[in-house]
Amino acid sequence: MKRIVLLRHGQSRWNLENRFTGWTDVDLSEQGMAEALQAGEDLKKAGITFTHAYTSYLKRAVKTLNCVLDSMDLDWIPVEKTWRLNEKHYGQLQGLNKSETAEKYGNEQIHIWRRSYDVAPEPLKDTDERSAKQDPRYACVPDAELPRTESLKDAIKRVMPYWECEIFPRLKQEDSLLVVAHGNSLRGIVKHLKNISDEAISELNLPTAVPYVFEFDDELRLTKDYFLGDPEKIKKLMAAVANQGVAK
Amino acid sequence: MKRIVLLRHGQSRWNLENRFTGWTDVDLSEQGMAEALQAGEDLKKAGITFTHAYTSYLKRAVKTLNCVLDSMDLDWIPVEKTWRLNEKHYGQLQGLNKSETAEKYGNEQIHIWRRSYDVAPEPLKDTDERSAKQDPRYACVPDAELPRTESLKDAIKRVMPYWECEIFPRLKQEDSLLVVAHGNSLRGIVKHLKNISDEAISELNLPTAVPYVFEFDDELRLTKDYFLGDPEKIKKLMAAVANQGVAK
Repeated sequence: MKRIVLLRHGQSRWNLENRFTGWTDVDLSEQGMAEALQAGEDLKKAGITFTHAYTSYLKRAVKTLNCVLDSMDLDWIPVEKTWRLNEKHYGQLQGLNKSETAEKYGNEQIHIWRRSYDVAPEPLKDTDERSAKQDPRYACVPDAELPRTESLKDAIKRVMPYWECEIFPRLKQEDSLLVVAHGNSLRGIVKHLKNISDEAISELNLPTAVPYVFEFDDELRLTKDYFLGDPEKIKKLMAAVANQGVAK
Repeated sequence: MKRIVLLRHGQSRWNLENRFTGWTDVDLSEQGMAEALQAGEDLKKAGITFTHAYTSYLKRAVKTLNCVLDSMDLDWIPVEKTWRLNEKHYGQLQGLNKSETAEKYGNEQIHIWRRSYDVAPEPLKDTDERSAKQDPRYACVPDAELPRTESLKDAIKRVMPYWECEIFPRLKQEDSLLVVAHGNSLRGIVKHLKNISDEAISELNLPTAVPYVFEFDDELRLTKDYFLGDPEKIKKLMAAVANQGVAK
């Protein structure tokens, strides 16, 4: 049996402040660290181990992964980091408070920006200090591929080549991989694996720091998928994510 | 100008207990974490940044590196982990208290085991639960290369291929690399870079978590090397390392 576990990063400082984050490199909160350690404990308890892990260029994902690996005693395994697993780029919305933006533009517009499949917020200018063009870590990304804003569709389009060329093929040589990333980059992978429609994928709210386990047979056909943990708790976590961005 | 910074991991729980560690995968102490964060702060203050980092398979080094990168806001850079940067294997001594071992065998024998260039402690049996043969992380290492004990000479011999083939050549493409490892694996690199004799290298006591900066010209000739930090503090740290293993 082969296995890939997807994990959304733990709570970040901006989840806490209810701001649009996107590519902003916000740190984990204390609770986020604790969630990550717990995810590691749950995986260990379930008898799961990993030989290779993947994460984004954003520290809330990298540090979630570091915490998980440490609590599993797997600090030593190889880790690949890539901008392609980054969160959806939120363009001009990056840094704004979700409730205030909802009051200004209305809940419906915010819902379109957050949950439509192919509508992107206004792009960030290259001269904006929030732009990825100002950040040396993206210097290696070809200009034409570097996002200034993204719809969910755009984000998925840049995630999938990495999934197809790096992560999934590695299952041929290795049995158990871990991917720690973000709500929207993981939506892309789940959409692909479970053949979910453009409309339905926007409604999938992955809970933070709950391991989502995908099992495959030796021909790498998906045989089973499940969240690891208490179903009631997971339901509550998913509802909490869905309710972010509603004007209070 | 090109640069490689060597960093010995922060204090481990067994440094604290004064036990022979070697390949035992002992965690950092609280102080060790703080030392690592401080090293990151010092590097940042000195205007140093990195594009690539290297560490061993042992968590006291991996976690030191994670702390340094986090305090430098460089969580995203690629990290390579290798067993070749592990600490010297201490064979049968692994896990024993240094002072008690000194009382049993005498300070002189301990000094030979710890500081001679080519005398190794008794080897660990493959069936010993402390043996690397029992640890899945070393399954990929060819049996003939997997140490059961090591002299400093042996340890240096398995560090250098990685230095020569992976770390040093990368300076051709990149300007600033970080290597976080252990007292003896770093001795090998320093011996090579500074052309230190077999006799003298054993007396080099690298302080923990103090960045050791090596600068090179464009032809990769060494031009300068220095420790980053307060010289008086570094001197004290070096003396403290030298005095470990003396019967009390």
